[in-house]
Amino acid sequence: MERVVLGIDIGATSSKLGLVDSAGNILVESSIPTPVNTSGVSAAEFVKSLCEASFVLQHQARTVEVIGVGAGAPNANYNKGTIEFAANLPWQHEVVPFVELMKTYFPNLPIRITNDANAAAIGEKVYGGAKGMKDFVSITLGTGFGSGIVVGGELVYGCDGFAGEIGHVVMIPNGRRCGCGRLGCLETYVSATGLKQTAFEVMSRRYFTEKSLLKAASFNEITPKYIADAALQGDSMALEVFEQTGEMLGLALANTVAFSSPEAIFLYGGLANSGDLLLTPTRKSLDKNMLKNYCKRTADGQFIQEASTQLLLSHLCNKNGAVLGAAALVWHEKV
Amino acid sequence: MERVVLGIDIGATSSKLGLVDSAGNILVESSIPTPVNTSGVSAAEFVKSLCEASFVLQHQARTVEVIGVGAGAPNANYNKGTIEFAANLPWQHEVVPFVELMKTYFPNLPIRITNDANAAAIGEKVYGGAKGMKDFVSITLGTGFGSGIVVGGELVYGCDGFAGEIGHVVMIPNGRRCGCGRLGCLETYVSATGLKQTAFEVMSRRYFTEKSLLKAASFNEITPKYIADAALQGDSMALEVFEQTGEMLGLALANTVAFSSPEAIFLYGGLANSGDLLLTPTRKSLDKNMLKNYCKRTADGQFIQEASTQLLLSHLCNKNGAVLGAAALVWHEKV
Repeated sequence: MERVVLGIDIGATSSKLGLVDSAGNILVESSIPTPVNTSGVSAAEFVKSLCEASFVLQHQARTVEVIGVGAGAPNANYNKGTIEFAANLPWQHEVVPFVELMKTYFPNLPIRITNDANAAAIGEKVYGGAKGMKDFVSITLGTGFGSGIVVGGELVYGCDGFAGEIGHVVMIPNGRRCGCGRLGCLETYVSATGLKQTAFEVMSRRYFTEKSLLKAASFNEITPKYIADAALQGDSMALEVFEQTGEMLGLALANTVAFSSPEAIFLYGGLANSGDLLLTPTRKSLDKNMLKNYCKRTADGQFIQEASTQLLLSHLCNKNGAVLGAAALVWHEKV
Repeated sequence: MERVVLGIDIGATSSKLGLVDSAGNILVESSIPTPVNTSGVSAAEFVKSLCEASFVLQHQARTVEVIGVGAGAPNANYNKGTIEFAANLPWQHEVVPFVELMKTYFPNLPIRITNDANAAAIGEKVYGGAKGMKDFVSITLGTGFGSGIVVGGELVYGCDGFAGEIGHVVMIPNGRRCGCGRLGCLETYVSATGLKQTAFEVMSRRYFTEKSLLKAASFNEITPKYIADAALQGDSMALEVFEQTGEMLGLALANTVAFSSPEAIFLYGGLANSGDLLLTPTRKSLDKNMLKNYCKRTADGQFIQEASTQLLLSHLCNKNGAVLGAAALVWHEKV
């Protein structure tokens, strides 16, 4: 019997499941639709569907023993095992007792839940580039900006289970309007959505006869990939979009280092796939904005304006990182 | 034999010592001058003086057993036990192997060193208002802005021993020039120095015939206490200085909560002694700027724009908190 953890990634449109071994192999996987807001499906019914789908997986995988369940979900509270007032799920006015509901189906197993960005951080530690690291930060750049902070080998959950919302650090007082209702959050500048907004800001500012591929796309049409493709073709406005995004991200990461002084920062998620387009300006800004204490030094103590912190792409990119990360929540406790 | 820890607070002008019991009583204390930059006194000679002064204390206290040594010093590295390139000490181009030098005099005891702000945080946990708290932040508002972040009951030291420099988070891109060489650090707005600068900014901006007690003091003369006294007399400009300082501090603390979601934040140090003058606008700004996730909710889940995080004055104010905190580094490991 091979020991596996059931990893679950609950997203706004679909929820993915996989049986994951200790080495990070997903033996079998599937997905079910996440009910829409108007469906009237209760959280208990949804959890039942998840568990039934997992029983199908266990049947497919044959000789496996499920030793635990790990889940990633928006607004998940690790301390309480709940999903609380999640705006993108049909239970936005409820505290869903996720772990308690799952216990009906997996009565004697450890069941953990946290948000997807925290799960990605633990995934990085158990299966990815952060193996053996005690202090690191994982940044998930998707539609929004997620973060998981690891200190002394453990995720920072905080007193309420909700720590690690670097995307909602205010970078520009009275800046761009954020989905959270406040102004100037990092997420409004560094995320898929932020990149689009920056593209339109750049177009609004630069000389109007200047040619750019960005000018052919509407706000609704434009995507990070579209901007990246333009940049790779040398489009000067598209390059400036990545330059500005990296500048802001580098400053935010330098500020992050002043908190927890991590050995490395990993970038994960859709936007991280733009690779050097984002990494190069981010690294430049990280170096430029880094406090002396966290810079390199020569042997005789002369400091060099260059960050000691490594900036790396996640090793989970191009994998089903969300399911891996969720499973890692349990494997992390076993190893 | 009463068990005590030797607590040492190494400052730029003087260094304080005390023998501290497990309850946080300083049985005996003294101080020696810290050598000035031009003195040519070696770090080894200074450590020898510290130890000799401590032997005098042990003699005075008679029946005590020293079970460890804790020290707070600028640029102290907890992980390595060193003081590294400290600009305000005569060894600014050196890495002083403090713990190693002390071992000559206290060969078999635990010896710990960290910066004063970290020591204050541990002091708060062992002797102060953070007893029993696992997640909190301690802010030291002196000439500069120090911080100690406690996560899961332990101080965050980071991969290099230098974590927790919230004072050097950039709040205003291209803002005030900081001693660290960068622009817009929190410390340039929220500290004794920052308060003075804000006083002069307020005077430079408001209507020039307006009366204010602030106008009678030169930049060299003005102190936080002078501004506080004026504010307590209802001086409108002085009140605005505290209003602006609290506004910035509240925003910075809201950002801090997005990192580690602490149960409480403690304010310690000279500027914290201005009490409600600073606390009231800071709390207002903390509430206003807090991300929804970290706000209070009614029983039915309606959120209230009010921080869950408590903002408190340190219980170590009006005590020799720096020596207590240093001693707490060792007591923290024993209890």
